[in-house]
Amino acid sequence: MRYRKVPDETIRRLPGYLNGLLFLAKQGHENISSHNLAEFLGVNPSQIRKDFSYFGGFGIRGRGYEIQNLIKQIGKILKLDTARPVALVGVGNLGSALLAYPGFAIYGFDLVAAFDSDPQKIGKTKSNITIEGIAGLDSVREKNIKIAIIAVPRPAAQQIADTLIQAGVTGILNFAPCYLKVPKKVKVVTINIATDLARLPYYMPQA
Amino acid sequence: MRYRKVPDETIRRLPGYLNGLLFLAKQGHENISSHNLAEFLGVNPSQIRKDFSYFGGFGIRGRGYEIQNLIKQIGKILKLDTARPVALVGVGNLGSALLAYPGFAIYGFDLVAAFDSDPQKIGKTKSNITIEGIAGLDSVREKNIKIAIIAVPRPAAQQIADTLIQAGVTGILNFAPCYLKVPKKVKVVTINIATDLARLPYYMPQA
Repeated sequence: MRYRKVPDETIRRLPGYLNGLLFLAKQGHENISSHNLAEFLGVNPSQIRKDFSYFGGFGIRGRGYEIQNLIKQIGKILKLDTARPVALVGVGNLGSALLAYPGFAIYGFDLVAAFDSDPQKIGKTKSNITIEGIAGLDSVREKNIKIAIIAVPRPAAQQIADTLIQAGVTGILNFAPCYLKVPKKVKVVTINIATDLARLPYYMPQA
Repeated sequence: MRYRKVPDETIRRLPGYLNGLLFLAKQGHENISSHNLAEFLGVNPSQIRKDFSYFGGFGIRGRGYEIQNLIKQIGKILKLDTARPVALVGVGNLGSALLAYPGFAIYGFDLVAAFDSDPQKIGKTKSNITIEGIAGLDSVREKNIKIAIIAVPRPAAQQIADTLIQAGVTGILNFAPCYLKVPKKVKVVTINIATDLARLPYYMPQA
């Protein structure tokens, strides 16, 4: 099946839909109307319909969506229908929290390697992962790891990214507060917690 | 000035634009074309123009945008033109990372209080903040704190949210992997790191 060019914003929303659908499936639901799905996910029904329209829609008029089918289709579109090993670089407070984070598995992500530059940390085990030194970063190639999470301080981030890309990584989730320069074939998603906080006041009543 | 109803997606993007503009201003730039701004921010130029159109646009045809003016206008729209005290609940690995996070200040956020239930942590100082017990959570009212960050384990999150809302909080940034039930006047933004990771594979070349 050929898809139309899908807007980035649609791709950004699909994992959230998938997350909600997996939750509903776990609760035993089999079908859901577009209206109820939208309400459950806290988004606009027309938004959901528009997002799904890029893939030919998934609903049956009058019967809503089959949840298991929807999960399968979205997983396929997002290429989440296969297990993917992930490396973490930087095992400070944030990195440690990520190592313990239980939410990656539902999308098929498996945090299998962690790296840090601190000799005190290297060789220690956290959340069942033994921390390796930064010098061993290029071992991600042998481990066939294509996705990495960067949780190092800003000054180190670009060099870490360069090394990871040299070793075959093509997807980076970046927590360092900076723009990373990468080749076109590499996708970077930068998480800036402050920008998420910054959209709260708009919605809050005047004090 | 009256604004048209602004889509949530536009509000979601504005803090990112603001972040980029603040960076450009710091580098000494005064004006920028819509095209260059889009390229710098890594978004579609038509997206930016559409987002700005909700506020009557900010550009002067042929001359692009005045960066300082844009910063001021976006700050006003997002109600970020005033300093806001913020409370953190949960000082585990993630909470500790947030306490040390330098990025909140540019939006006027000031992390002034931190709470945890662990007696070992209460009274200790981290990143210049003395950790208080959960029992003292309602002190956010006296401190006029309207925004809170929840970084506690899932089972505790709803009760923490309820207590915060009782004490006057109307904006919550939630890191617990769950939906929070809140009254209509309260805005919750839930951060799910896994869903951000989950949009990477779509963009990655086949292995």
